[in-house]
Amino acid sequence: MTPPPAPGPTGLITHGPADLVVTGCTALTHDARGEIVFVDDATVVVRDGVIASVTAGGTGDHIPAAAERIDGRGTVALPGLVNCHTHTPMVALRGLAEDLPAHAWFNDWIWPVESNLTGRVVGLGARLACAEMIRGGVTTFADHYFAMDEVAAAARQSGLRAVLGQAYFSSQGPEGRAASLDFALRQRGAADGRITTCLAPHAPYTVDGADLAATAELAMEHGLLVHIHAAENREQTDNSLARHGRTPIEILERAGLLDTDVLLAHATGLDTDRDLPVLRRARGRVAVASAPRGYLKFGWDTTPVRALREAGVPVGLATDGAASNNTLDVWESMTLTALVQKYVERDPTWLTARQALDHATLQSARAVGLGDEIGSLAPGRRADLVLVDVTGPHTQPVHDLAATLVHSARSADVRTTIVAGRVLMRDRRLLTLDVPDIVGELSELLPELTDRSHGGRIQEYEG
Amino acid sequence: MTPPPAPGPTGLITHGPADLVVTGCTALTHDARGEIVFVDDATVVVRDGVIASVTAGGTGDHIPAAAERIDGRGTVALPGLVNCHTHTPMVALRGLAEDLPAHAWFNDWIWPVESNLTGRVVGLGARLACAEMIRGGVTTFADHYFAMDEVAAAARQSGLRAVLGQAYFSSQGPEGRAASLDFALRQRGAADGRITTCLAPHAPYTVDGADLAATAELAMEHGLLVHIHAAENREQTDNSLARHGRTPIEILERAGLLDTDVLLAHATGLDTDRDLPVLRRARGRVAVASAPRGYLKFGWDTTPVRALREAGVPVGLATDGAASNNTLDVWESMTLTALVQKYVERDPTWLTARQALDHATLQSARAVGLGDEIGSLAPGRRADLVLVDVTGPHTQPVHDLAATLVHSARSADVRTTIVAGRVLMRDRRLLTLDVPDIVGELSELLPELTDRSHGGRIQEYEG
Repeated sequence: MTPPPAPGPTGLITHGPADLVVTGCTALTHDARGEIVFVDDATVVVRDGVIASVTAGGTGDHIPAAAERIDGRGTVALPGLVNCHTHTPMVALRGLAEDLPAHAWFNDWIWPVESNLTGRVVGLGARLACAEMIRGGVTTFADHYFAMDEVAAAARQSGLRAVLGQAYFSSQGPEGRAASLDFALRQRGAADGRITTCLAPHAPYTVDGADLAATAELAMEHGLLVHIHAAENREQTDNSLARHGRTPIEILERAGLLDTDVLLAHATGLDTDRDLPVLRRARGRVAVASAPRGYLKFGWDTTPVRALREAGVPVGLATDGAASNNTLDVWESMTLTALVQKYVERDPTWLTARQALDHATLQSARAVGLGDEIGSLAPGRRADLVLVDVTGPHTQPVHDLAATLVHSARSADVRTTIVAGRVLMRDRRLLTLDVPDIVGELSELLPELTDRSHGGRIQEYEG
Repeated sequence: MTPPPAPGPTGLITHGPADLVVTGCTALTHDARGEIVFVDDATVVVRDGVIASVTAGGTGDHIPAAAERIDGRGTVALPGLVNCHTHTPMVALRGLAEDLPAHAWFNDWIWPVESNLTGRVVGLGARLACAEMIRGGVTTFADHYFAMDEVAAAARQSGLRAVLGQAYFSSQGPEGRAASLDFALRQRGAADGRITTCLAPHAPYTVDGADLAATAELAMEHGLLVHIHAAENREQTDNSLARHGRTPIEILERAGLLDTDVLLAHATGLDTDRDLPVLRRARGRVAVASAPRGYLKFGWDTTPVRALREAGVPVGLATDGAASNNTLDVWESMTLTALVQKYVERDPTWLTARQALDHATLQSARAVGLGDEIGSLAPGRRADLVLVDVTGPHTQPVHDLAATLVHSARSADVRTTIVAGRVLMRDRRLLTLDVPDIVGELSELLPELTDRSHGGRIQEYEG
């Protein structure tokens, strides 16, 4: 017989045994205005995949019985990181094409090699990527690639939450768009609701105006997010102006895509004078995913975070694919966002550690369309959280925990990763994926994958 | 009875039992031109603190008996990293003064707090820093601070190699310089030769011309390296030109310091038109230490690595102190050097992964005056090496091992750190330092250390 609900330490009702309880951690929470508040000696209670409570100083009698308990002493519990734009299977190409400008990278390496993609490579790559992300404290990823049923299967197996879109070019004809819609409708809500879906036109320079307009209509009709590369670099914006008299952002607006919920990848090539007014007047929820590591590597400008923030556009953190970024380390993206934004604005007082954490939590959640579901450790939100060890010599002493997290800690300090209340990594041990097996299988496929002797490519990069 | 020396696999003579043998790793070595060559399935043999041999495919009979053996499968053995410019005890201030411009950082926080320094804080901070560096694959550090006997003791206890200099300002009178010399002569060769020493005038803006000239003479007389902050940022150079009609580099030249072996910290404010010809004609061995993380954080320019390389000036990697840099992670400095240099030069083909590894190995060794001793895994060099795990999901697959190391691996992948043949960390376990003890003791001293109510400061920053 279940005892009657008893009042918890802060008056919350505790409804009998919990699924998971984390004790003794410091919890990163948000106040009503969205400001970060660290709660010391916190107890996090999870029921049915959802956070039931986050309370301070909960000890002894007040902690409910639970199927699983984690001693969080020495760690900070924070909302799991969100990789707002990636191409997970491209981990198979990590380090293949280095120290190259974008044209050569696309046309001589990546797009020829992607002619050789198979479902098996995509599935193995996605699994390896999921393993990397779980170890790096990522709990949700937004993926934009091909053979996405394989990625969905990897997300399902790994236990991660995912926002998935099947990419298409206009060069595929209307079938590309149709397949993207089919995928989005079929997989929406899969994996116990952990998978949400979107439409994923590749970019304004590879998807024509009619196709973009049709995409906008489908997004409206079906209530789908649109995830697209836009203004990846300044050269693309200049070329767009020369060819069409419009910036990539203006092309998206004209196609009606800014009337929908849309996630723009990169936007380092924004023409701030022309594009910011367009983004301000957008009727849909527009957000940007920023992956600063790759921009440095290609020698591009970075995402104009300050201008976007002033325009009210959320900026989420991302890694892009590992073929350009070399890692799927969103923690590194957080740190680099802080560092690079200070540098490009020539303002050390800008992009504080707390703001970096805001991008990593609430803003990233909003960017992928899950602003009410994830991104904060609050009752009712999905129980997606990570425990980060701050006892290492590189994170001690702690004068300012936000600075410790952003500037001293790193992804390798994530000890435990939890999605929907399920522990996917505990004390650095992966519980859902077998890395040596995945790497072994994938390695056998690499010679065929990386063969460029056929001379083909899936698309021509003209940016 | 010792058997007669037998020829090894490549004809080297193996002289009976070794002290340490690492098998099955991939070794990062250098060819005669200094180019990086990876040797697969390598065996590294260490005797008397020195590398006896690095051979390929050494298995079975050819591996000598050894007091200690390490199975290096799945790892890359590379020369231990060198932190070419740091202030180790400043880890005690990690995260204390964040998101501030340099003036406020110095005058309102760091220099007031440094009025409260005690030998005990310095010693504990240095130990904590050594722990962090050992875990991050650093085997040598060049430290420039106060109470340096405490740092020497920490280096001795930790097992690290160190290049130590007692800092001074002209505001201390001639005693500052005398104490720096006394320290350098007293500690030179300490800790079984692991400690080398230098003279450490603070900077051209805090040490006057006469003091710098006297330092140059002492350096010549005693054969000592000089380690000094120089042209830390562009504002310092502009101020130097306004006050003295000379850049900081020209001031050093005029004082005779470029006739000595000199290590210049930062040099982000080089006036390349004026300063590069000066550096080219320097008669001493001039090198620069670059700590790119802090420059981003302060919104400064970065070290002009390309121009320095063209001028033949070695650029070593550094972290500066953790009060500004937040980490002592030289691996991160390597990665950031590659990324930031590509960005500032707007050239993705520049600062390749192999060049980054060159800065991390040979150039860093030269920068701290140990170019013949460390920086390469070659017979006769000190056995300072680290084993880096490349089996993690974030480092797989490997298409290009240099790219894997620079752009995918990170300091947390260092499994084992060895200095002079002694294992200081094995499988991530520190063997010479107790972090919880050090942190516990240091934490008790922090309230007194960070008290600024006295209103004093050790120096005024006017840059």
